[in-house]
Amino acid sequence: MFRSRRKRLLFARVLLLLKNRKPVARRRNAHMLKYPDAKVISLGIGDTTEPIPEVITSAIAKRAEALSTLEGYSGYGPEQGEKPLRTAIASTFYAGLGIEEDDIFVSDGAKCDISRLQMVFWGKCNHGSARSIIPVIYVSINWLMFDSSVIMGQTGQFQKDVEKYGKIEYMRCTPENGFFPDLSKVSRTDIIFFCSPNNPTGSAATREQLTRLVQFAKDNGSIIVYDSAYAMYMSDDNPRSIFEIPGAKEVALETSSFSKYAGFTGVRLGWTVVPKQLLYSDGFPVVKDFNRVVCTSFNGASNICQAGGRACLSPEGLKAMSEVIGFYKENTNIIMDTFNSLGFNVYGGKNAPYVWVHFPGQSSWDVFSEILEKTHVVTTPGSGFGPGGEGFVRVSAFGHRENVLEACRRFKQLYN
Amino acid sequence: MFRSRRKRLLFARVLLLLKNRKPVARRRNAHMLKYPDAKVISLGIGDTTEPIPEVITSAIAKRAEALSTLEGYSGYGPEQGEKPLRTAIASTFYAGLGIEEDDIFVSDGAKCDISRLQMVFWGKCNHGSARSIIPVIYVSINWLMFDSSVIMGQTGQFQKDVEKYGKIEYMRCTPENGFFPDLSKVSRTDIIFFCSPNNPTGSAATREQLTRLVQFAKDNGSIIVYDSAYAMYMSDDNPRSIFEIPGAKEVALETSSFSKYAGFTGVRLGWTVVPKQLLYSDGFPVVKDFNRVVCTSFNGASNICQAGGRACLSPEGLKAMSEVIGFYKENTNIIMDTFNSLGFNVYGGKNAPYVWVHFPGQSSWDVFSEILEKTHVVTTPGSGFGPGGEGFVRVSAFGHRENVLEACRRFKQLYN
Repeated sequence: MFRSRRKRLLFARVLLLLKNRKPVARRRNAHMLKYPDAKVISLGIGDTTEPIPEVITSAIAKRAEALSTLEGYSGYGPEQGEKPLRTAIASTFYAGLGIEEDDIFVSDGAKCDISRLQMVFWGKCNHGSARSIIPVIYVSINWLMFDSSVIMGQTGQFQKDVEKYGKIEYMRCTPENGFFPDLSKVSRTDIIFFCSPNNPTGSAATREQLTRLVQFAKDNGSIIVYDSAYAMYMSDDNPRSIFEIPGAKEVALETSSFSKYAGFTGVRLGWTVVPKQLLYSDGFPVVKDFNRVVCTSFNGASNICQAGGRACLSPEGLKAMSEVIGFYKENTNIIMDTFNSLGFNVYGGKNAPYVWVHFPGQSSWDVFSEILEKTHVVTTPGSGFGPGGEGFVRVSAFGHRENVLEACRRFKQLYN
Repeated sequence: MFRSRRKRLLFARVLLLLKNRKPVARRRNAHMLKYPDAKVISLGIGDTTEPIPEVITSAIAKRAEALSTLEGYSGYGPEQGEKPLRTAIASTFYAGLGIEEDDIFVSDGAKCDISRLQMVFWGKCNHGSARSIIPVIYVSINWLMFDSSVIMGQTGQFQKDVEKYGKIEYMRCTPENGFFPDLSKVSRTDIIFFCSPNNPTGSAATREQLTRLVQFAKDNGSIIVYDSAYAMYMSDDNPRSIFEIPGAKEVALETSSFSKYAGFTGVRLGWTVVPKQLLYSDGFPVVKDFNRVVCTSFNGASNICQAGGRACLSPEGLKAMSEVIGFYKENTNIIMDTFNSLGFNVYGGKNAPYVWVHFPGQSSWDVFSEILEKTHVVTTPGSGFGPGGEGFVRVSAFGHRENVLEACRRFKQLYN
């Protein structure tokens, strides 16, 4: 394959661009080499740091031990997930919204399901769509959605002058538009990736905004892929699920995860809701394609981890999860207060464990470098999330309390 | 999407064909409704039935419990897997073969990795290959490889008259050719899927056959995707890994799993070896693409399950696994002896937990139905695995001993 030099170079460039998506880690490592004695604090990536509540780990351990008994052993489970867990997810997160147990697919995390969705959509294209899918990318979407599209070669050429892919429609979200795109200026696309509460901006879409988004999708025959992995962090009265919006079941699916609720980033457990009412324009249910991809490309989440999921949704588990979330929300407040007291315009924080700090007119990579150099704290430059993130830095609230306090002390020294 | 009726119908037909890939379960369920009092024994699907050795489950439980402590907690791990496990896999299964820890990617099972490989290959195509990939399908390959190709729309139209997909090259494997294809009659393709010891035929390719296969791939610039998930079941002195063949690292990658060794079908843990020597024809290393897909579409296998994997590869774990495998091999012998004593030509069994029974001139669905109707034992009709499987029935050795013995008693009543 790949005998054409031009195409080979294009592919190499795409890979290079993708490779550059982990520059923060490279910069952190270089910094640690330069200052081997410095206590580097990472508030960069959104990785959980606090132990998993014991009520959850003991359920996992119990299930693991049962697997060495004849009565407790189980082999292949349903690819869609064990029924009690699917039922618990439906009743915990979607009560009264008309989402049923068989609309829920248990996964090994939202990231993995988003890739399987790519298989669904590109497969559908290859099987007969007259045109290829042009995803709308909400500017501050989780990049994983974007990356897997790029890998599948569905995003068109990267246009270096504007730093955009040709077949992606970008939606600029800034303080000026309340971090919600002006839909009157957005072209029609097949797929809309949308993440709320948002990573990295920390903003959450309001009921009225989501109602407009659902109507926009309806008018255009688009499918919304809605990422609600931070819904439990919400303080405002915004919708926790896209399905709180009337009519959303006909235009949207939703993906979520236990990662940031229970510290399951390493355990791996999530879910995706594909309502049976969601149809392609030919009337075929999306859920049938998704089910087929799940059954073919996945053998279900680990039975041990699913036991952990069930424990998360028990009354004791829910209480324990809300304590973990409360802890990270306190971290968020500490970071918000710090930057507010220093006179910065600070966004996010209230509904998500991310603080989006504005450095107007500055390059976010320059700000990132200055913070790292002078405080030994790793943040994430906003432009890493797309062109709309320029001039911002994301500070993550995932960290031990003493590290967050120490980072904030150093921020105060730097900016006071 | 999908506004063309013709294409819509084609897609619907593809889905229908895929749906028909689980007819055995439907037939079993219908049978259980018809005979509610019958004791139905399933020797159909290859699902493990015996408990996981305690030395392994206790390691899993210990890791789970540690996750609720500050010292034992871990979040996102390396997407490629934890280093000690990668090292243990390299030294246990590939000692002396020049496979290193960084060639190993830990996964949630071979099935999932095979789908990620599809993303690698189709992505490569979309990014610039002059022609699309035409996989060679070894007739009795694990169907999961085939199914995910079909879903991705890369297999061409299904030709009903010959029951084949247009863009798949089928390789007929029968007793006449020793279950190894006549490579002089096989067209050149980009990808060759090969499974040894084979599911469903139970046959294992010899060193000489694999040497020819590697040479064939080299001559044609093809990449071999080698599935060795049953290697530990081998009694003969055939290669346990494709990498035992000199030069294989330049043309092959290999996928495997703990599922059938430790009863991990529900736990989910496997691995794929992508040697850094494996290059596309443009000189680009396949491992770089695979690594990118793994990092983008997967967040690594569960840390809890990886602890189980490490326990499997400890001296005690290896001993315990070989006892589990030994148990299923005894089952296999019981089934082999039964059909041999009844005068059937029986294949497989020696190197894999599957017995491939020949019913020359008969439809394998008819045989399946007769066995189910008269003995209440579920088997798998050979034609379900492809046109080359017609006239065969696969009997799986995964079952409790008393069920295997009882099934064999019933076979003797039926065929004596």
